[in-house]
Amino acid sequence: MEFTFLGTSAGTPTRARNVTALALQHGGPRHWYLVDCGEGTQHQLLRTRLSVVQLQAIFITHVHGDHTFGLPGLLTSASMAGRTTPLPLIGPPQLKPFIETILANTDSSLSFELLYINSEADDFQWQDDALRVTSFPLSHRVPCHAYRFEELRLERKLLTERLKADGVKPGPEWGRLQKGHDVILADGTLVRATDYTEIPRSPRRVVVAGDNDNPDLLTDACQDAHLLVHEATYTQEVADRVGPWPQHSSARQVAAFARKAGLPHLILTHFSSRYQAAGTRGPVIDEITTEARESYTGNLHLARDFQRFRLDRDLTLTEVDE
Amino acid sequence: MEFTFLGTSAGTPTRARNVTALALQHGGPRHWYLVDCGEGTQHQLLRTRLSVVQLQAIFITHVHGDHTFGLPGLLTSASMAGRTTPLPLIGPPQLKPFIETILANTDSSLSFELLYINSEADDFQWQDDALRVTSFPLSHRVPCHAYRFEELRLERKLLTERLKADGVKPGPEWGRLQKGHDVILADGTLVRATDYTEIPRSPRRVVVAGDNDNPDLLTDACQDAHLLVHEATYTQEVADRVGPWPQHSSARQVAAFARKAGLPHLILTHFSSRYQAAGTRGPVIDEITTEARESYTGNLHLARDFQRFRLDRDLTLTEVDE
Repeated sequence: MEFTFLGTSAGTPTRARNVTALALQHGGPRHWYLVDCGEGTQHQLLRTRLSVVQLQAIFITHVHGDHTFGLPGLLTSASMAGRTTPLPLIGPPQLKPFIETILANTDSSLSFELLYINSEADDFQWQDDALRVTSFPLSHRVPCHAYRFEELRLERKLLTERLKADGVKPGPEWGRLQKGHDVILADGTLVRATDYTEIPRSPRRVVVAGDNDNPDLLTDACQDAHLLVHEATYTQEVADRVGPWPQHSSARQVAAFARKAGLPHLILTHFSSRYQAAGTRGPVIDEITTEARESYTGNLHLARDFQRFRLDRDLTLTEVDE
Repeated sequence: MEFTFLGTSAGTPTRARNVTALALQHGGPRHWYLVDCGEGTQHQLLRTRLSVVQLQAIFITHVHGDHTFGLPGLLTSASMAGRTTPLPLIGPPQLKPFIETILANTDSSLSFELLYINSEADDFQWQDDALRVTSFPLSHRVPCHAYRFEELRLERKLLTERLKADGVKPGPEWGRLQKGHDVILADGTLVRATDYTEIPRSPRRVVVAGDNDNPDLLTDACQDAHLLVHEATYTQEVADRVGPWPQHSSARQVAAFARKAGLPHLILTHFSSRYQAAGTRGPVIDEITTEARESYTGNLHLARDFQRFRLDRDLTLTEVDE
C-alpha cells in the first residue's frame, strides 16, 4: 500500500507545494485511488507513474476549491487518454451539479461513465475487490469527511501439516484453497478453505482526513488504524492569531489526538502557504514539526509534494526513494 | 508592450508545456491582461512577476476546458490575495453560468466584482485607458474569437520650434500640451495641443487568436497589425491524418496567411502534445518551424512556456531575457 502526496498546500498553491491531492496505490498493478483533487492534480500526475486510465475511484473530502478545482481537467484528460471504464466519484452531493454544469458550458463530454456516490449519506460505504471504505464526519466550514481505507482479500497461508495429516495431497487443490475457495476432491470429500488456511496478519487500515478543527471526531475512525493523514495548517500560535473562523487544526491538536489514539504512524499535510522553506522570510515548516513532536512520539512525517510512503504488510511505514 | 506565454500546449498539459494562457503587459506599472486561462495558469503566474491584483481584464477566446479550467482557481486566489478592484471577464456568455455554478457549489465567493462582458455580442468593443480591444469570429467546434489589441494614448512630441515662433515660452504649459491638454496662457490665448504636438508613430496593434481552422477569417483583424499570435496545432501532414474534425490550423495554413497579410511578426503556439523535444520519441516541434518557414519569411517564433517578447514602439519584436 503506497501513498504519493500530489499536493500539500492549504488554500492556494505555492512554488513548492500544490493544493491538496493524495494518491493511494493498492490492489493491483498500477491500481490507485485519488483522495481530493486540487487544481493542477493532472499536472502533478505527469511527474509520477500513475495514469488516469488505472484510477479506480476518486474520493473528495469536501467541496472547497483547493480540493476540487482539478476535477474538470483530470476527468476530461482521462477522456482524451481514451478511458472507457466507469469511474466512481465519491463525495458531497454538490459535485454532480458542479461537474455537469462545467461540462455542459464548455462543450465537454466524457468517454466513460462517472458514478456519483454521495459520501454524506447515512449508510455510506464503498468497496471494491481490494478496499473497503467508510466515511466519518469532521468539523469544518462545510460538510467534510475523513475516509477510512481497510484492505480486503488478505493473502492466506496454507496449513500444510494439517492438509497432509488429513490426506489432502499437494496439487492444484492447494492453490485453490490458498485463494480461499473450497474444493471437492476426486473421492467426493468437501475441503473447506477456512479449515486449511489462516490469515496471519491484520488488514492495513488508513484514515485520510479532510479539513477539520476537531481531531477527536476521528476517535472511532482511528480505532485499530495504523496511519492517519491529517491537516496541520499551522502551529497553535498562528491558529490563535488567525482565530477559529477557518476551522483548521494546529499541529498541537493533531499530535495530541494521535498520541491519545495510539496511532503508530502520523503524516501531516495541508500547510498554510505562509510556511516556506528554511532560509526564506516568514515562519518555517520546522515549527510545525517541533510542535507536533512535543506530544506525539510515534512515527511522524510532514508530507512534501511527490513524497511517497509505503505501509508494508508488517505495518511499518517507510519513505520510498525513487 | 510585453507578452509572456503561460501555456503553449493544446488540449492537455505536458511536462514542458501547460495549456493555453497568455499575459499581455501594457499601460502602467505591472498592469497586465490575460488571454485564456487553462488549468494551472495561477501556478504558472507564481513563476513570473505578474500579480492577480494588477490584472486589468481577462479575455477568453472560447469555452473549451484547456482555455478556461484555470478560471475558478485564479479568481478565488485573487480573492484570497485581497483583490477588491472589479475585474472584467470578457468572453462567451457561457462563462457566467460556468463560474457562478462553481462558486455556488464550492462554498466560494469573490472579494471583488466580476464584470461579465459578452465578446460574442454584435457591437462588442472594450477599452480602458491603455488599450482598445475588438473581437473577430473564427472557425472552430464552438464559437471562438480573436482579440485585436490596439494601444491608446500614444506619447505626443512637442513642436518646440512652432511654440517658440508663436511666442509660447517653455514652462508648465509645455508639459500640459505634451499630455494632450489644451492650455490658456496668462494673456488669455487658447493654445491647442493638436496644433503644437504630433504623434510620431503608429499605435501598436496585436491580434491574439483562439482555436481556428481558417486563418483567412483574420484578414480584416490583421489589417495594419504588427503581430499575430495564432495556434499551429500540427503540421499539414498530421492535420491531414487527423482529419478536419478538431478544426485546428496547420503551420502551413497560418504561415501562408501571415505572408499574404504582410504581417511583420508571427508567433505560433498551442502545439499538440504529440510534439516533444528533440531526442524523444514522436514528431519534434522543429517540424512545425520548418513548415512555417517554407512560406513565411517574416519574424517567426514558436512560443515556449515562460518565453517573453517585447513589441517596442519602433515595432520591432524581440525576445526578453530574464
